[in-house]
Amino acid sequence: MLSQNIQNALKGNSVIRAMFMEGKMMAEEIGAENVYDFSLGNPATPAPASVNQAIKDAVDELDSMELHGYMANAGYPDVRTAIAENLNKRFGTDFGMQNIIMTVGAAGGLNIILKTFLDPGDEVIAFAPYFVEYRAYVANFGGKIVEVSPNLDNFQPDLVDFEQKITDKTKAVIINTPNNPTGVIYSDETMTQLGEILSKKQKEYGHEIYLISDEPYRELVYDGEKERFLTGFYPNTIVGYSFSKSLSLPGERIGYVVVPNEVSDAKNVQTAIEIANRQLGFVNAPSLIQKAVAKCLDEKTDVAYYDKNRELLYGELTKLGFDCIKPQGAFYLWVKSPLADEEEFVQIAKKHHILLVKGSAFACPGYVRIAYCAAFEHIQNSLSAFAKLAEELGLKKA
Amino acid sequence: MLSQNIQNALKGNSVIRAMFMEGKMMAEEIGAENVYDFSLGNPATPAPASVNQAIKDAVDELDSMELHGYMANAGYPDVRTAIAENLNKRFGTDFGMQNIIMTVGAAGGLNIILKTFLDPGDEVIAFAPYFVEYRAYVANFGGKIVEVSPNLDNFQPDLVDFEQKITDKTKAVIINTPNNPTGVIYSDETMTQLGEILSKKQKEYGHEIYLISDEPYRELVYDGEKERFLTGFYPNTIVGYSFSKSLSLPGERIGYVVVPNEVSDAKNVQTAIEIANRQLGFVNAPSLIQKAVAKCLDEKTDVAYYDKNRELLYGELTKLGFDCIKPQGAFYLWVKSPLADEEEFVQIAKKHHILLVKGSAFACPGYVRIAYCAAFEHIQNSLSAFAKLAEELGLKKA
Repeated sequence: MLSQNIQNALKGNSVIRAMFMEGKMMAEEIGAENVYDFSLGNPATPAPASVNQAIKDAVDELDSMELHGYMANAGYPDVRTAIAENLNKRFGTDFGMQNIIMTVGAAGGLNIILKTFLDPGDEVIAFAPYFVEYRAYVANFGGKIVEVSPNLDNFQPDLVDFEQKITDKTKAVIINTPNNPTGVIYSDETMTQLGEILSKKQKEYGHEIYLISDEPYRELVYDGEKERFLTGFYPNTIVGYSFSKSLSLPGERIGYVVVPNEVSDAKNVQTAIEIANRQLGFVNAPSLIQKAVAKCLDEKTDVAYYDKNRELLYGELTKLGFDCIKPQGAFYLWVKSPLADEEEFVQIAKKHHILLVKGSAFACPGYVRIAYCAAFEHIQNSLSAFAKLAEELGLKKA
Repeated sequence: MLSQNIQNALKGNSVIRAMFMEGKMMAEEIGAENVYDFSLGNPATPAPASVNQAIKDAVDELDSMELHGYMANAGYPDVRTAIAENLNKRFGTDFGMQNIIMTVGAAGGLNIILKTFLDPGDEVIAFAPYFVEYRAYVANFGGKIVEVSPNLDNFQPDLVDFEQKITDKTKAVIINTPNNPTGVIYSDETMTQLGEILSKKQKEYGHEIYLISDEPYRELVYDGEKERFLTGFYPNTIVGYSFSKSLSLPGERIGYVVVPNEVSDAKNVQTAIEIANRQLGFVNAPSLIQKAVAKCLDEKTDVAYYDKNRELLYGELTKLGFDCIKPQGAFYLWVKSPLADEEEFVQIAKKHHILLVKGSAFACPGYVRIAYCAAFEHIQNSLSAFAKLAEELGLKKA
């Protein structure tokens, strides 16, 4: 008597979560130090000390009803104002509290955005490879994901295929940069062209097409790349953000949605998203942690920690003969499978106690994802296992 | 370009929230002390001191990755175990961690339960008067609320009408006791009969009908009433619980779902609800507050505080000639409107700066709800306004 949607989900369940659970079992058998579990994007760095201090300060200083009570469904006014001002300072935007809606993480944010716009049968475009849960999120509202084929040269979006995939039913486009799973940052040129195509298509079809920018990795950039905020490229852009990665708080479920004034009918959209937040059962973002993050908007996790992992893993795997995309952001390494069937590659890697996620889980077979949000020593220790894997597969050293 | 659902919601929006915002504006004009805002069920008692201590202890003692990191979508094993054991101790149940799924409040819990069971077109029965958001929750999954008429004698469910409303499309029944908005507790006799009807109808239609027990007011009971836990009356019972009221933490969004082993296909239902938690974008209940409530399971808010309000308000309004149901639980007083059109009554009360919610917002016109979760002094001060209201309406003193 389970719903059809959930029956299907039970069959598929999450490949990533399944691998995570498999890793836990393997760790019990042979010891966690011997399992190279690179399956889950669980931050490996602690939250900045200031976050824990802000939590304790809020508990000590605020009245219980203010700290733990209901507030407007969009969040505390002081928290929303602080975030608006912080974005203005960093990115030259001109937001006020009305542009910010506090959410239960980015996953909560994306769902209330999609609830706001989608009618059954609507299409949402995503660029392969993409975070698999988008499919479930869009299906929650009877929508359908339309995939743009991956651009295997550099994993920037394939804008030619993109333009062809837009139809009268296209209600939204989701982008995610820095990207999970590739680590690629969409260039300003890509974003400009993408905005131009959307503006043209909006005119052609005579209705809005929303660009949804999923930005949990905004602050995790390397090689001197600047942090980007994407509302400047196309007026109908709505941002979903999470503090999960920037402050290492994934369990706390805290993020926000930005609806700029440039969005058509912005006021109604803001109210609608607030209503969706209530009606989907989120009600509001968790209260104490709202207050805490508002005090830590200039903080971020130890990005250099991930950078060190990135350099080591990219360098060594490349030397071993693996074909990798050098990540510019996030904490994933995207590796071409040495075997035509990447699932077979994942199975062989598992024999060496290396847990990877197959690319087909991101709508991009032939590749695997390595989440290098792990302890540096653990990555060091994994290298001999990768060497044996390369040897078994007969890879040629670079 | 908003979705049809959200366009409708924008028109209606929440009557209760609208009244709450109106109260805030009135307070700015004439001062908060002069506005008798009884519109919102926002707890008026602080969280027990032990909750804030548990938060600080968790921050001091736990590793950041354990405290703020991802865990299984169902929540921390130690938290789920603690809750199972606490329920077993209090209610003689036999739960283990597998029966408990931590949720983003009861609203999050209800939504993931409904996502697990509902296909478009399915029917969910609710007993009028009921919490209005149920309608939106059921509509999220294409379901339809079927209302059982209120039993105006004592506001126990009308089981004759109930039996007639069950059809082959009935997938679930939602109950809420102690009840919002009436304060009535469904008797053991009611529950036994309700369970018998459901068992009979399951057999008749040859498929499961789930009883969803929404229990945020479980611990708020008066006059020596015992706290009740409702899985014992009917095997296919699933509980949605929230710490919002028992620990005065409504802003924190923390609760849990209970799926007893007696539920048909219990293991799959448990997994399905966990998947629904992820796919709807909740991912998991907020982490730090999970750890904190697990340390405070024997604590509860100051129930005597609400009891004092209840006695005063019920006593005085009855004396003024209002016709009230004496609440046995929760923190609402359900009052028969002295005017045929209760909306007119609400408008007249507003002139006296008394903010009430109309019964039609709970599918039960002709009544109003008074949320007496307010400071005792505030209720004392409101009595002269109620007296003037009674006078204007020509009520006869008892």
